[in-house]
Amino acid sequence: MTAAGKELRVLFEPSGRKVFVLPGTVLLEAAAQAGFILHTPCGGAGHCGKCLVRIRSGRCTPSATEEATLGAARIAEGFRLACQARVEGPLTIEIPETSLFQSQQQILTADSGEPLQVHPRVARHPLTLPSPTHGAGEISDAERLLAALPPCRLRIAALRRLPLALRQADFRVTAVVADGEVLDIEPGHDADSAYGVAFDIGSTTLVGTLVHLRTGADLAVAARVNPQTSFGDDVLSRIAKCRNEPDGLAVLQAAVLDGINRLLDELVKKTGVDRRHVYELVFAGNTTMQQIFCGISPAALGELPFVPAFREALEMHAADLGLRVNPEAKVYVFPQIGGFVGGDTVAGIVATRLDRAPTPALLVDIGTNGEIVLAAHGRLTATSVAAGPAFEGARIVNGMRATAGAIEKVLLDGDVRINVIGNARPAGLCGTGLIDAAAELLRVGALDSTGRLLHANEAPAGLEPAIRNRLIEEQGEVKFLLADGAITSSGQPLYLYQRDIRELQLANGAIRAGINILLQDAGLRPEDLGVILLAGAFGNFIRRNHARRIGMLPPIPCRQIRFVGNTASFGAKRVLLSVEEKKYAEEIVRRVEHLDLSLHAAFLEEFGRAMLLPEQDPGECAESD
Amino acid sequence: MTAAGKELRVLFEPSGRKVFVLPGTVLLEAAAQAGFILHTPCGGAGHCGKCLVRIRSGRCTPSATEEATLGAARIAEGFRLACQARVEGPLTIEIPETSLFQSQQQILTADSGEPLQVHPRVARHPLTLPSPTHGAGEISDAERLLAALPPCRLRIAALRRLPLALRQADFRVTAVVADGEVLDIEPGHDADSAYGVAFDIGSTTLVGTLVHLRTGADLAVAARVNPQTSFGDDVLSRIAKCRNEPDGLAVLQAAVLDGINRLLDELVKKTGVDRRHVYELVFAGNTTMQQIFCGISPAALGELPFVPAFREALEMHAADLGLRVNPEAKVYVFPQIGGFVGGDTVAGIVATRLDRAPTPALLVDIGTNGEIVLAAHGRLTATSVAAGPAFEGARIVNGMRATAGAIEKVLLDGDVRINVIGNARPAGLCGTGLIDAAAELLRVGALDSTGRLLHANEAPAGLEPAIRNRLIEEQGEVKFLLADGAITSSGQPLYLYQRDIRELQLANGAIRAGINILLQDAGLRPEDLGVILLAGAFGNFIRRNHARRIGMLPPIPCRQIRFVGNTASFGAKRVLLSVEEKKYAEEIVRRVEHLDLSLHAAFLEEFGRAMLLPEQDPGECAESD
Repeated sequence: MTAAGKELRVLFEPSGRKVFVLPGTVLLEAAAQAGFILHTPCGGAGHCGKCLVRIRSGRCTPSATEEATLGAARIAEGFRLACQARVEGPLTIEIPETSLFQSQQQILTADSGEPLQVHPRVARHPLTLPSPTHGAGEISDAERLLAALPPCRLRIAALRRLPLALRQADFRVTAVVADGEVLDIEPGHDADSAYGVAFDIGSTTLVGTLVHLRTGADLAVAARVNPQTSFGDDVLSRIAKCRNEPDGLAVLQAAVLDGINRLLDELVKKTGVDRRHVYELVFAGNTTMQQIFCGISPAALGELPFVPAFREALEMHAADLGLRVNPEAKVYVFPQIGGFVGGDTVAGIVATRLDRAPTPALLVDIGTNGEIVLAAHGRLTATSVAAGPAFEGARIVNGMRATAGAIEKVLLDGDVRINVIGNARPAGLCGTGLIDAAAELLRVGALDSTGRLLHANEAPAGLEPAIRNRLIEEQGEVKFLLADGAITSSGQPLYLYQRDIRELQLANGAIRAGINILLQDAGLRPEDLGVILLAGAFGNFIRRNHARRIGMLPPIPCRQIRFVGNTASFGAKRVLLSVEEKKYAEEIVRRVEHLDLSLHAAFLEEFGRAMLLPEQDPGECAESD
Repeated sequence: MTAAGKELRVLFEPSGRKVFVLPGTVLLEAAAQAGFILHTPCGGAGHCGKCLVRIRSGRCTPSATEEATLGAARIAEGFRLACQARVEGPLTIEIPETSLFQSQQQILTADSGEPLQVHPRVARHPLTLPSPTHGAGEISDAERLLAALPPCRLRIAALRRLPLALRQADFRVTAVVADGEVLDIEPGHDADSAYGVAFDIGSTTLVGTLVHLRTGADLAVAARVNPQTSFGDDVLSRIAKCRNEPDGLAVLQAAVLDGINRLLDELVKKTGVDRRHVYELVFAGNTTMQQIFCGISPAALGELPFVPAFREALEMHAADLGLRVNPEAKVYVFPQIGGFVGGDTVAGIVATRLDRAPTPALLVDIGTNGEIVLAAHGRLTATSVAAGPAFEGARIVNGMRATAGAIEKVLLDGDVRINVIGNARPAGLCGTGLIDAAAELLRVGALDSTGRLLHANEAPAGLEPAIRNRLIEEQGEVKFLLADGAITSSGQPLYLYQRDIRELQLANGAIRAGINILLQDAGLRPEDLGVILLAGAFGNFIRRNHARRIGMLPPIPCRQIRFVGNTASFGAKRVLLSVEEKKYAEEIVRRVEHLDLSLHAAFLEEFGRAMLLPEQDPGECAESD
């Protein structure tokens, strides 16, 4: 090893994991190498401060960006930004729990558990074939096999295995067949060992469900953070990377494929399934995620009019993508609707049978992008809105993801009562906590309908002093004290700032404006809606009363607002298990009309209106409804 | 570089090429690394002595095998066997021209030049597509393209290039389409740049012909020795390697793919064609060659009843085999008939239209395996015979391939007159020379019909003394002096031995017995044949009178015996250029009846009879007929 290649030790506390990296390596990469994925909502620009780490020993010269973002005092305490700081010599580094992306983050993998159609396209056929004698010798091995099967062609990989497999078990073999193609051949008889995996490729989270193809039984579920998040939290930053960097697409594709392969490793390890017996993989994600996954540049999704590369489902084989299952395994990528409304939304419709709802029904999947589908009077219309990352805790001063330490529930009940994920000291505010705080402040009158936090002396006369005292003025603006430094993990107080409310209003307004436009387009009023289905990880933790109070959802009774879980995963599983569900998904894509809000004359006006918080409480319903 | 890894210089004379190799490397490998492929008919066992080299300087300890094969005197002169000798220190080595496989070997690349059908399945479509506006934005790029083409599906590789290609040239693109699939997309308009290569995969020689798909014009032809020959000269030794060595198939497949890739390199370099514009490759070879090429074990071809893995044509893509053209290029492997009658024979029928001959017609391709097809009264019957490597110069004491130094013509005309390839001093006897010598000795009465070389005193009274004196007795057997040491390249005399005649009788008998069995099966006598077509490299250099004299071919007039050249190459080109020719090839395979001689009751008797050389001269015809 030459002097230029000398690697330096970086030790991570409190885990004690260590890695060796070249001088100049960014700490974010060193951490990733040790298995730690850190928050980087700003895409590594050094502005958001979410990837905070602390140097315990060793030299690590701060950059100008770090000094500007963190300030001299924190720099002096050893704090650095993992996305900026570089390894100069051996280091010992502490990663605060709040900087970690994974760990105890609440990843939603449950589905609604509806009955499944089980009619997979992959089947195993045990066959006993005539052995060649002096007389049947004129038949080639391929003909011998194909004569025993419905009309099929042999894929070359199966043909390569055929001569030996036939002669290993006295011409008793099992053929694996899908869509008129023989994918594989094994010696001996085994009708049972056929598996598939349904994947939800989220911008943030990857979820895989391993199922037994013959019975439809779930054998294991695994989830992990999409490794692309280390290149930016939202789809726009990833599109920009593909547009601006020659190898941007390749890097992002490799990241998600690596994440999928690790999930596959975990699933086969958990279940003992032979990965050679995994014959189909189904993938559902938004348009950007699906295109990057397939290696198709999403650049055209980053410019008007947001043109996707494809709409019909794509078919590949595992070997085309280097996925570690049977190389001939079928890969099915969901059909997609258009703009940012992708395969995950199609999977959501498949999962919920939205188009078959007896009354007008709305499916809302809230994330960095919100996707909304309305089914009414035989029509399906869909749109997407850029809700921004506020619900993921980004662009919120004390925001964080829904991981340990996040305030996920806020109640103003004489004083401030909070609930913290993971039974930890509070470290920040996640999306549901943000909505709660705003809804409660609105209720008690400390927040007005324009979204302004009132000064302590402006607040209604009846406001309890314990709450009024938390409205603290600073440079002409008001902030609200959520948690005193005495109880927080950092020892610093946690506030809700005026600009956090503005971020919430933007996200909230975008979703509600999208809903309103779809309703108007269908000639419906909000009260005509028979049901709203809330999908996705965030949707499942939201409190319906609060979502109604801040105007994100129309004021229909809570019992008509239902949590439907990870519909992308469940829809993908349905499609994996049944050829009819595949046809259904493809039919849906042909039926759905895509409303592009950027082209919609009324959108800006609706958006402006929806930014305002409702003055009237729509009336509380029981959350248990 | 560590001491263990120290590489040693090996210099080759007279070329002056040098390579660096690790100690212990076999000279055969070192030579291959320098670009020299040597004869190894015995598969590197050290018995045949054909890979002779001479050490000019440096130490190279002879092995016991070399001492046994070469004898102490030649060892002392520095001669070694390249397949046995190992590098111990820096060496300078001379490779005699006669040990070289390539160099001036007569490789046949001509075809019969019949008119071609040009109707390729690959076409380029220049298209001007509607650009997305606010209104046409709902159409995905894939739909935009497919709407402008006949019904097609997009391969993922083309879809990956599509979004960028569309936007690089203002939505003017060229789509490359084959068999209802879009293989590739390029920005801009170009209807012309589509190429294909037709390959003949011989056991000994690889020939590739680069053609322009739209016009059918030949742009270049290249040929090289099949690198598999370094593992043994005939298909049986290669089948054995696949059966006996765990990585035997992989090694042999890699060797032929490497040879094909080098031919492709040569063809694109010669012509300046962009290898990305090569969209189809067609391959014709015998069953063993085709199966190894595809990565399908030929092991079952090495045991009764010689079952091939497939009969129908195989379709792959270039990327499946790592061939260096457009990764999506179609790969078509010829359908094959059965046993050892493979795609090259099918290509031969396609090239010659044998099945359409107005009179009974025979196609004979003479090589290590002889393939024979009879078309008569609407039936096509085919068989193969193991002619052995005698015609390639192997198992003949002073035998050699038809390269520089080979005696390729022998005439007994008062004295012995010989013709040597490459205007060199004689070094050995090639297949045509062997046939000539036998036919002439038979004619003058020095060889009897049992194949015995007569003693000088047994020969007919009229035999010229100059010839009689060359019948030399040694240990009870007679050998015939072909060339005196004074004129040979080695300074040693060259003889035709009694056992060489026996090898010829075996090869000769096998071919003639095959012909006779096909004729009998069809109820025909030899004189019913309207035409015999002689195909392949060896067939084209044979002298028809001599082939008739020794009984290899039936005694029909020479003008009815035609040389048709490399029909495998020409048939492969026809199939490359036309979808109808592909159908024709596949129809032929369904029509041809394969006669397995190993199952045929009359074969041994016929073989025994055909081993005898005809007592009567069938009467000479003009070779120019």
